[in-house]
Amino acid sequence: MEGSLQIVDVNKFEALAVHERLAALQAAGNEDRKLLIRVLAPDDAADVLQKATREFREQLLLLLDQATRAEVIALLAYAEDVAGGLMTPRFLRLRPELTIKEAKVYVERQIGAGQASTSRYIYVLAVDQKLLGVLSARELQLGASTARVEEIMRRDVITVHDHLDREAVAHVYNSHAYKALPVIDADGRMVGVLTADDIVGVVQAEATEDMHKVGGSPALDAPYLQAPLRAIIPWRAIALAILFVGETFTASALGYFQDEIAKHVALTLFMPLILSSGGNSGSQATTFVIRALALGQIKLRDAFKVFRREFIIGASLGAILAVLGLLRVLGWQFLFNMYGDLYMTYALIVLVSLIGVVLWGSLVGALLPLIIKACRCDPATSSAPLVATFVDVTGLIIYFEVAKVLLAGL
Amino acid sequence: MEGSLQIVDVNKFEALAVHERLAALQAAGNEDRKLLIRVLAPDDAADVLQKATREFREQLLLLLDQATRAEVIALLAYAEDVAGGLMTPRFLRLRPELTIKEAKVYVERQIGAGQASTSRYIYVLAVDQKLLGVLSARELQLGASTARVEEIMRRDVITVHDHLDREAVAHVYNSHAYKALPVIDADGRMVGVLTADDIVGVVQAEATEDMHKVGGSPALDAPYLQAPLRAIIPWRAIALAILFVGETFTASALGYFQDEIAKHVALTLFMPLILSSGGNSGSQATTFVIRALALGQIKLRDAFKVFRREFIIGASLGAILAVLGLLRVLGWQFLFNMYGDLYMTYALIVLVSLIGVVLWGSLVGALLPLIIKACRCDPATSSAPLVATFVDVTGLIIYFEVAKVLLAGL
Repeated sequence: MEGSLQIVDVNKFEALAVHERLAALQAAGNEDRKLLIRVLAPDDAADVLQKATREFREQLLLLLDQATRAEVIALLAYAEDVAGGLMTPRFLRLRPELTIKEAKVYVERQIGAGQASTSRYIYVLAVDQKLLGVLSARELQLGASTARVEEIMRRDVITVHDHLDREAVAHVYNSHAYKALPVIDADGRMVGVLTADDIVGVVQAEATEDMHKVGGSPALDAPYLQAPLRAIIPWRAIALAILFVGETFTASALGYFQDEIAKHVALTLFMPLILSSGGNSGSQATTFVIRALALGQIKLRDAFKVFRREFIIGASLGAILAVLGLLRVLGWQFLFNMYGDLYMTYALIVLVSLIGVVLWGSLVGALLPLIIKACRCDPATSSAPLVATFVDVTGLIIYFEVAKVLLAGL
Repeated sequence: MEGSLQIVDVNKFEALAVHERLAALQAAGNEDRKLLIRVLAPDDAADVLQKATREFREQLLLLLDQATRAEVIALLAYAEDVAGGLMTPRFLRLRPELTIKEAKVYVERQIGAGQASTSRYIYVLAVDQKLLGVLSARELQLGASTARVEEIMRRDVITVHDHLDREAVAHVYNSHAYKALPVIDADGRMVGVLTADDIVGVVQAEATEDMHKVGGSPALDAPYLQAPLRAIIPWRAIALAILFVGETFTASALGYFQDEIAKHVALTLFMPLILSSGGNSGSQATTFVIRALALGQIKLRDAFKVFRREFIIGASLGAILAVLGLLRVLGWQFLFNMYGDLYMTYALIVLVSLIGVVLWGSLVGALLPLIIKACRCDPATSSAPLVATFVDVTGLIIYFEVAKVLLAGL
């Protein structure tokens, strides 16, 4: 292979996804392999090796220079989806006792070696690698030459532990505007840094997971068209079956109101309309709250604020839909004389139960994710279909109880 | 204010969100203001100035050094949510005719000036600023000293136009593994670069928008608890009202089947169960497809593959739920003798219509976002509630038509 061709390969190689990089390495000759694997930053190399067979992994490790090999081996010890598996082990570092003038020279030397994943922050470490503080590049530039690093560094650094899972990492990252997060091990030693490069994939993957869950199925990790059907069908079936069993309570509830239905068949006409309105307002509320929790915009302690907010919203939405429902019943009555003598009572039943069901749907949708979070589970489990199922069962009871009261004696 | 106190401020200031930075600048004295505004990279400064009053913006601009002021003014000309408004104008650049040896010196000098937002890529520009190619830092390191930049640079660079909106930017970024995207203007001049730092917020915001839409309401830009109710209620009400009007067709469809219902009240018992099963499988399918479209995992031309896939999945899920439904009807019949002599016919109606409705729901859920995308609208508009509403109306017809056929002559 010629020099120019190799360079094209390196370029292309950098643009590939992890499994494509692995395939390219398998296809390459030994010299090219060495070139390609050395192009990757240690965290990217570790991602590829993670996917390789044990034997091929050993081969590839031998192609790395000694320093990188040690870094990659350390990274391979972490699960892929924890801070340690996402971070890069290369960052700018300083000792606390250096003067700013000395520090600038050290930092330039480290940048020149091309090792740092970010040059925005410089971390101050003790001899035992414990993280003492942080300086931004700008602070280093502004600092007086004779001041010591420890005098101007910031000591209250936001850090994450190396075994923290990616969802929690994304939370910490979202909760402030720093552009890098230092990762420390159980002994407080800094082992790496997370930058936006490492986080952007996490943020995507977490959003995908939440979206799938909100849609009412377990999260799918592989791309949609690549995931094997034998993996998709059982998971989606289990989720649907659970919802189905929940929804069978509607059949039981309806059985309980069978006498009212037999006497007033017109009541069944509005049943899907009223139940779906409750489910839809619940679906709106639950996705808002799930997303706000994921972005750290609301916490569990905001539960009362959320309740108050959705109470006002739900009551307003219920009132608006109730008016529409009233107009629908009266309109069709005048146009087609569809509902007989009791049309005014039916219109009132629709009006009152829409307010109740929509308000109830909003409250259930908003509070269910908070309750699930309080139980230390993933709030995204409160999916739109789960809320709709719950509101179907309880909404039916609201609807027919309202009907029973308003039809009493008729 | 003392030096050490100022440094703490700089640190804190960097961690603040845009509106908090603006408030801090308003609160600060003139000397501190100058220090603080100069801490920000030009794209971050532009974001803050974007939110300021015209008068305060002019004041802040005067505090910047001349070069940065020109950069910030250029950025302010862009809308916030297009590539030009997200990018940073500082990147490493080289002329094509330089030798690798000369290039290394230039690059080191540029890095030393602390100007580049990424040191991973160096862009090769003509005298008129047109983008000719790109080199990775690694390629520069590996290149022979006497080779010219233009000999080893890669010419087929993936770029985005400065007025491309953020959703499309996220798409391009997702579609490959490069860690920076050059931004070019209408004349092909490179005006800035997008890195993961700029993209991570876009990815979050786009996921939030899609999640809100999937939940059945327009996207909410402000944090959940801060958004004013007078902004939330009308939008959520409009979305619910549209769904409500769609759902009123269930009342019309049920009116059409009123005779069957009057004769077989037991049919109403299973109605919510069957409709919600269709809606739930549709909700699963639609969120999978919406997310896969957003991540660029599927394109419009994959429509047939998606159809085939969801046909198999929907039929399997339908069969599984149908068996559960059958067991439910037969079980309750044997335990409570609930459904009279026709219980076997009802069980069959539930079985057949569950297969039909669940299959139909999966297909509608999967294909609706593709159809909406084909109409050049946002596929996330195909929300879980919209799919459920559509499946409610059509599912009712499937259910009662199956019932009519199986009950014919009884």
